[in-house]
Amino acid sequence: MRELGVLEGILTENDRAARDNRRRLEQARVFTMNVMASPGAGKTSLIARAIEHLQPKLHIAVIEGDIASSIDADHLARMGVPTVQINTGGACHLEAQAVSEALARLPLERLDLLFLENVGNLVCPISFDLGETCKAMVSSVAEGDDKPQKYPAMFQAVDVVILNKIDLHGICPFERDAFLRAVGQLNPSAAIFELSCLTGAGVEAWTTWLEEQVSTGPAFRRTSGSGD
Amino acid sequence: MRELGVLEGILTENDRAARDNRRRLEQARVFTMNVMASPGAGKTSLIARAIEHLQPKLHIAVIEGDIASSIDADHLARMGVPTVQINTGGACHLEAQAVSEALARLPLERLDLLFLENVGNLVCPISFDLGETCKAMVSSVAEGDDKPQKYPAMFQAVDVVILNKIDLHGICPFERDAFLRAVGQLNPSAAIFELSCLTGAGVEAWTTWLEEQVSTGPAFRRTSGSGD
Repeated sequence: MRELGVLEGILTENDRAARDNRRRLEQARVFTMNVMASPGAGKTSLIARAIEHLQPKLHIAVIEGDIASSIDADHLARMGVPTVQINTGGACHLEAQAVSEALARLPLERLDLLFLENVGNLVCPISFDLGETCKAMVSSVAEGDDKPQKYPAMFQAVDVVILNKIDLHGICPFERDAFLRAVGQLNPSAAIFELSCLTGAGVEAWTTWLEEQVSTGPAFRRTSGSGD
Repeated sequence: MRELGVLEGILTENDRAARDNRRRLEQARVFTMNVMASPGAGKTSLIARAIEHLQPKLHIAVIEGDIASSIDADHLARMGVPTVQINTGGACHLEAQAVSEALARLPLERLDLLFLENVGNLVCPISFDLGETCKAMVSSVAEGDDKPQKYPAMFQAVDVVILNKIDLHGICPFERDAFLRAVGQLNPSAAIFELSCLTGAGVEAWTTWLEEQVSTGPAFRRTSGSGD
């Protein structure tokens, strides 16, 4: 509780920057997806699959958040999309101010879809609005089916839950029905996709949905922080 | 940077509590292992395997840190070990003060080995000394081989790296040599174990090593926070 006053101050500052980001992105008509997950759940692979399916129909860019290294940014840049790396220098989440600086380095007027790949973390990123249109999370079969109960705030905060690595069904212990029921209880309105970025199974349903959201505008339109 | 002063204050307060914890645990001769990992890497399974192999030779207890739920604590309590649940209420790591309160609820004088299962997070837990004898991390084959480069501070801070889910070699993309090389570069003195909590492969080498550490005292003896 002793941290609360300070945290509120930081969040207020973040929210101001997020509001500015949102205004810039809406003016430029860029659909922006904040992609969150545990380390190794498949955020970069999911974004790579979307680029593969939706380019050149859509103009796509990526802001890549990592504590260290530019492995993912290098990988995605090789696919021919504008990519800006944010190294958070130890911080466990992206903040709106850093995203704002990254936006200045992107050709926003020419973009349709912008991914913000957050730091691998199921906890901290949800507290920081970035100005995104849509919050997505990736959970993987390898992580087990109890993640919704253990990290409920993340599952509640997002508009889309992507269950990745479905090729591991029957190999890793995972009760699909239990997972889907728990997600449905925490977040009845979330869109859910089950896919494997490795094999490609289920990817098309996800990219088709994403293309629709970008083209027709999202059913959800965020005007402030998490949850609305 | 604006957070630094406040963070230092919190860390100082944490370090005081950690020092007290360390004194209590050393007096009671309890070997304490802080177990950290991404969500779903296998912390609870690793602890369960140790209990299975080392009880009743060693008297074991667990302090279980979760943001929400008591799924893991319930699971381990069923194995007959004293278990205390800490729900962090949203916080992304265990802190020494909460561990101190949990210690008061355990029969320390009768214990040999105490696990502190941290919140699933590869970033924040390393900043908080808990008074442990030993820091361990679990990484899993399913997460990919690039985790050392992406989360270097965690790999540098620990005494032991456990690579779990080796039954997924050949199923998930994972370059074993690249992973081991990266760990060795970041932390040449770390003990490394490769195992599968699911199949049991490699578990005995790990529990034999752990039993030795508990019996003869660790080669590493922490006297303050991370890294020494």
